[in-house]
Amino acid sequence: MSDLGSHDRVRAIQWAEDRLQLLDQRRLPGEEIYLSLTDVGAVADAIRDMVVRGAPAIGITAAFGAVLAARHRYMEDRQAWRETLQTDLALLGGARPTAVNLGWALARVGECLKTVRGDPEPVLLALAREIHQQDITANRRMGELGAALIEPGSGVLTHCNTGSLATGGYGTALGVIRSAWAAGRLSAVFADETRPWLQGARLTAWELVQDAIPVSLLVDGAAAHLMKSGQVQWLVVGSDRIAANGDVANKIGTYAAAVAAHHHGVKVMVVAPCSTVDMNTPTGADIPIEIRPESEVLELAGQSVAARGAKAWNPAFDITPAQLVDAIVTERGVVERPDPAGMKALMS
Amino acid sequence: MSDLGSHDRVRAIQWAEDRLQLLDQRRLPGEEIYLSLTDVGAVADAIRDMVVRGAPAIGITAAFGAVLAARHRYMEDRQAWRETLQTDLALLGGARPTAVNLGWALARVGECLKTVRGDPEPVLLALAREIHQQDITANRRMGELGAALIEPGSGVLTHCNTGSLATGGYGTALGVIRSAWAAGRLSAVFADETRPWLQGARLTAWELVQDAIPVSLLVDGAAAHLMKSGQVQWLVVGSDRIAANGDVANKIGTYAAAVAAHHHGVKVMVVAPCSTVDMNTPTGADIPIEIRPESEVLELAGQSVAARGAKAWNPAFDITPAQLVDAIVTERGVVERPDPAGMKALMS
Repeated sequence: MSDLGSHDRVRAIQWAEDRLQLLDQRRLPGEEIYLSLTDVGAVADAIRDMVVRGAPAIGITAAFGAVLAARHRYMEDRQAWRETLQTDLALLGGARPTAVNLGWALARVGECLKTVRGDPEPVLLALAREIHQQDITANRRMGELGAALIEPGSGVLTHCNTGSLATGGYGTALGVIRSAWAAGRLSAVFADETRPWLQGARLTAWELVQDAIPVSLLVDGAAAHLMKSGQVQWLVVGSDRIAANGDVANKIGTYAAAVAAHHHGVKVMVVAPCSTVDMNTPTGADIPIEIRPESEVLELAGQSVAARGAKAWNPAFDITPAQLVDAIVTERGVVERPDPAGMKALMS
Repeated sequence: MSDLGSHDRVRAIQWAEDRLQLLDQRRLPGEEIYLSLTDVGAVADAIRDMVVRGAPAIGITAAFGAVLAARHRYMEDRQAWRETLQTDLALLGGARPTAVNLGWALARVGECLKTVRGDPEPVLLALAREIHQQDITANRRMGELGAALIEPGSGVLTHCNTGSLATGGYGTALGVIRSAWAAGRLSAVFADETRPWLQGARLTAWELVQDAIPVSLLVDGAAAHLMKSGQVQWLVVGSDRIAANGDVANKIGTYAAAVAAHHHGVKVMVVAPCSTVDMNTPTGADIPIEIRPESEVLELAGQSVAARGAKAWNPAFDITPAQLVDAIVTERGVVERPDPAGMKALMS
């Protein structure tokens, strides 16, 4: 056992021995297995199949994926590599549709490539490392800013996983919870199990247990009942994309929790780096919602649980309108009661 | 394959060969196994361990359990059996706390016993069969009354299982859905998977597939997103206890769905026989909420899914206040916008 918390110990994304090493989050908490990737196709698969998930983590992974792609294309043809690399970047960009951090990271790759002369690998590797490190720094700052909003003695509820596993390290919403816990402001931490993928039970609980922060899991449907009981004062969640008007895309179930929070006077905090804010998407209605395979609902651990012949409707995300959000916390600052003007002021 | 729908074919509770036969609902939909019970202790265990579940089904099961107990006590001692039987009835009554149908059925047993002379078994068996048959008749009537409230072309969402498996046969909320489907009034049927026990995925889908009624399962957290999409006009649920003011106890997640329905202008229908109405419980706050084992949330099919060291908070039911309910449908009639006066008029 290490004295380090999981936010220091967990390295969901690592560059080592000239390759990308990803902790396979599908196997947690039972097994800690790292996949070693040298091929951009395998990186795109890993994003699509949720070896790695969480909007910031997907962005960082894509940046490292671009390094692998550039290495291969440059070795293949030192003249035409820029052109062929575009195919690889498009493959990465299409791996998952909702998290804008993916497109944001690839846009930075594209910008960087404009000035590259000669071998692109070292330049893109430096960029990927910078994106990774900036995300960790942003998380620490958001942790401070978000924790300061939470009144001492509060209980918090979170949804999905937004910790070290979902980001470069430390976490967005879970970073705020870590900071608030360290500052002695929290009376209790609750986590939705987060169906169908059980990110809450499998990942968030795993991180919090390692940090010795007591956590109570609940089924997603119990969140409203919990709020009615008076045990939580804040719902703290991450985001996969924030539109220019402050509407928030996040893991399916977030909207239900936000509606329940609104009904009970529980405040809603969305914690995400500016790389998650997409000023080119006017409203939540313009955010593409990924529909994932029915099997994620109909099966558990490869075993069919639902009756044969039943269908499933499996949207991976939902949209929480800005009107239900009390505060958006970014590394640049907090937008309270978000609206187009507040978002514009933040991002300009 | 049978031409019969599951509401005709499924016999979750049967009296055959002088014993109680229960379809083990923990094993569905994978296996159809009947447990054969001759002992009241085994019946109490079956209720507590959810071999049989659903408020009306629990009441019927308890009535048959009383037959087995009376047989044993009468054989044991033809003088003192009335006294010793009380212990058995108390054991049955304490098997689960929330569903009032259990106490209701045992009160009818108690009333019946007052006039028994000689061997109590035949009299109690006749009573149990009457309770069972009355429940089926009530379900058919509720099916008609509830279906008439649903505008043609509506989509419906249900939660948990309220069909043949949860009742004497046909179902409460699922009975309404069956009747409305048969009458051609429904555009779509959605069912929450209903964590942690997955009654929706395992049981409701199983019943509807057998009836050839198309059903789409969704994770409980997706219900609000579904409502926002405009695909459902009614949330139709059962109940484990309805208080004198119209507050409704039902499977955990019902309250969250009702809050979301209220937010979206989706109507809420609660379907339950009068045996579920408890005029001695003034409000929902007076209904005891069963807290079930943490393992139901932390494990799936006996395998740990959550991180070791995580706790779980596992209330089995929640309370939906009358203000969020548009109609309570019983076999005696419909109470729209339920309140104490409406409930009193229904039950008097």
